[in-house]
Amino acid sequence: MLQTELDTAVLDERLAAAKEASYRLARATTAEKNAALEQVSTLLRAAAADIIAANALDLQAGRDAGLATGLLDRLALDERRVEALADAVLEVIGLSDPVGETVSGRSLPNGVRIDQVRVPLGVIGAIYEARPNVTIDIAVLAIKSGNAAVLRGGTAAEQTNRVLVEVLRDALEAVGLPGAAVQTVDDFGRAGARHLMQARDYVDVLIPRGSAALIRAVVEEARVPVIETGAGVVHMFLDESAREDWAVELVHNAKVQRPSVCNALETLLVHRDAAQRLLPAVLDRLEASGVTVHADERVRALRPEAAPITDDEWATEHMSLDLSVGIVDSLDDALAHIRRYSTKHTESIVTNDLANAERFLNEVDAAAVMVNASTRFTDGAEFGFGAEVGISTQKLHARGPMGLPELTSTKWIVRGAGHVRA
Amino acid sequence: MLQTELDTAVLDERLAAAKEASYRLARATTAEKNAALEQVSTLLRAAAADIIAANALDLQAGRDAGLATGLLDRLALDERRVEALADAVLEVIGLSDPVGETVSGRSLPNGVRIDQVRVPLGVIGAIYEARPNVTIDIAVLAIKSGNAAVLRGGTAAEQTNRVLVEVLRDALEAVGLPGAAVQTVDDFGRAGARHLMQARDYVDVLIPRGSAALIRAVVEEARVPVIETGAGVVHMFLDESAREDWAVELVHNAKVQRPSVCNALETLLVHRDAAQRLLPAVLDRLEASGVTVHADERVRALRPEAAPITDDEWATEHMSLDLSVGIVDSLDDALAHIRRYSTKHTESIVTNDLANAERFLNEVDAAAVMVNASTRFTDGAEFGFGAEVGISTQKLHARGPMGLPELTSTKWIVRGAGHVRA
Repeated sequence: MLQTELDTAVLDERLAAAKEASYRLARATTAEKNAALEQVSTLLRAAAADIIAANALDLQAGRDAGLATGLLDRLALDERRVEALADAVLEVIGLSDPVGETVSGRSLPNGVRIDQVRVPLGVIGAIYEARPNVTIDIAVLAIKSGNAAVLRGGTAAEQTNRVLVEVLRDALEAVGLPGAAVQTVDDFGRAGARHLMQARDYVDVLIPRGSAALIRAVVEEARVPVIETGAGVVHMFLDESAREDWAVELVHNAKVQRPSVCNALETLLVHRDAAQRLLPAVLDRLEASGVTVHADERVRALRPEAAPITDDEWATEHMSLDLSVGIVDSLDDALAHIRRYSTKHTESIVTNDLANAERFLNEVDAAAVMVNASTRFTDGAEFGFGAEVGISTQKLHARGPMGLPELTSTKWIVRGAGHVRA
Repeated sequence: MLQTELDTAVLDERLAAAKEASYRLARATTAEKNAALEQVSTLLRAAAADIIAANALDLQAGRDAGLATGLLDRLALDERRVEALADAVLEVIGLSDPVGETVSGRSLPNGVRIDQVRVPLGVIGAIYEARPNVTIDIAVLAIKSGNAAVLRGGTAAEQTNRVLVEVLRDALEAVGLPGAAVQTVDDFGRAGARHLMQARDYVDVLIPRGSAALIRAVVEEARVPVIETGAGVVHMFLDESAREDWAVELVHNAKVQRPSVCNALETLLVHRDAAQRLLPAVLDRLEASGVTVHADERVRALRPEAAPITDDEWATEHMSLDLSVGIVDSLDDALAHIRRYSTKHTESIVTNDLANAERFLNEVDAAAVMVNASTRFTDGAEFGFGAEVGISTQKLHARGPMGLPELTSTKWIVRGAGHVRA
């Protein structure tokens, strides 16, 4: 992990090689790209022993460095996980290729023909935390959409990622595509990540995936355009007219089904006139599943054993079996609370009041707004995209779950016959 | 033009007011927004004398500061120009409102209904140079698309913009919409512009319009996402098989019809085997219109009186009756030259060779790629958009001419009936 001037030159060479390779990838046919993915899957299985051996080094280093158990688990690969990775790659082959799709087109009054056609973005920089599966995931989606990828997966997964990148490059070369289309900068450490974020000449978009802190750091430091993904302080509001059975199951599913992900519920708001009717059953069901409730004073009046909530917790993405719970006086108060604390990921109302449902859907500013549905549905696979690059919480380019089309741009193809502008 | 801490607080107050107003604008009906535009047009005509008086102050200050004649002309408003502005506002009323459009939608296998619907971006920050017409232009497009706008039009137009912003706010208030949806930060000078570029809590997107230097500065300094517009080092390549009559007229139109704009031709490349056949007529026609040719050595062998080109000039956006001209050995060399110097705005080939046309269209990376058409066609009005926010030269969110839909984002509306994720 040297950070000398020489390294910057080597790094720029890699970025330039990715850029150059991106032009070839952009012209690759769907058949060529699918053949490469087929190879990735085959070579992953063939290299399983090498991958696991490299992963063991990373795990040992992680244990030596005192990495938390959760992080070690996300870092770990065994034969079953490598198999699952190889299977997932095959699924991407079945997805339709967005490149070349005509988005719009017309003939101008003078006879000039214009067509807006999907083209790859070019070079995608991915910055994520030590989860080696993301290395395969994002590289495979980049290849399918005709892009090159520069990966920064974290120094903690450096050995594993090095082998995975070799697999990806061998697979590309095996079908006559440039291996240079996949690059890693893990060996350059944080300085390499920073350089990647500034490399406007080589990198077309940065996609950070991981913790809120990681994403914030990328947004702060980047000169390359960023697609923000992920962080979700997700709310559910139980309106006065909410059905009890729906309220109980929706809150439970949104909080408990997978608490560590960005579309899991973090804050429950309840209309004051429904609190006595709904909260006992809702909280009983949650607590039976081990959820810790952090409650405001009005909730604690009904549920004295709940922990008192601190102001900070309203803005906290717990990502655990913890839930912030509060009582509000009205839909307006719920909307105001959400506007203040939402990270604009997913917000849901449980109601049987049509006017309130419509107000909530219209007025809440988030990537996904829901009525009578679990917030866990904000997901590429659930939305039928087949694969997910991440969930964008920004408003430009892509919002919500991103599939392959979100890894493309467009260009205008203009065909004339000597046409000049009058 | 104070730059104290107090000013930052006042500035943040304005930005917060714009954000708050944006929520109301987002819910405004098309009828409400059109009524506001009608008012803008009416009030512009009514305030013509005030506008022209304020403009006279800016012009005087500009003359005192030694502003160039061209800049003074762009700054100047007279009765005819105010009328033209008022007329242009009425045209926007006729454009269809993108907000609320369903972009895609389906029922998931479990019965959950998802719809992707266009919503306003929120608050648009516009940074441009002292052209008061842009103030009306961008504010009107923002209003029509349900956005608030914070304008930084340059201190040189401060007096004029102040009156124009008053007109815009009065028009909004006259129809019951919040005047705070239009703000100016001209009175905060450069420090205000910098603050605007960093204001991620209040501003959703920055659109710089103007010189390459302005756009570069915004890209460098901004923390708010930027849509880059404008700069065009635009090429035309005369392939071996190019028709002479088309070549002559296309080059002439692309260079001469309006040389000061971003889609005007800056560099002409000619295939070596077509140079003797095409260049004399092409250059004669250009020179008859007063074009100065900056030529490489091979062109100068045919045209000794042409000025020798410097290396820098290949990367120069002349924006004047100057043209860089070079001879290349092949389509590949033309593509390589374009890849090196293109600003990815518009590139055009003149050819009768189908394979070469297709290669050019596929391989050139630009917002618009053309065959046998004048580069001047890259334009919102020509493309039938009715209005143009600018021409995006980046790949995220919008590429090429931007119309009203490019001032929107989307959100996913999810409707269930107690659906939970399995």
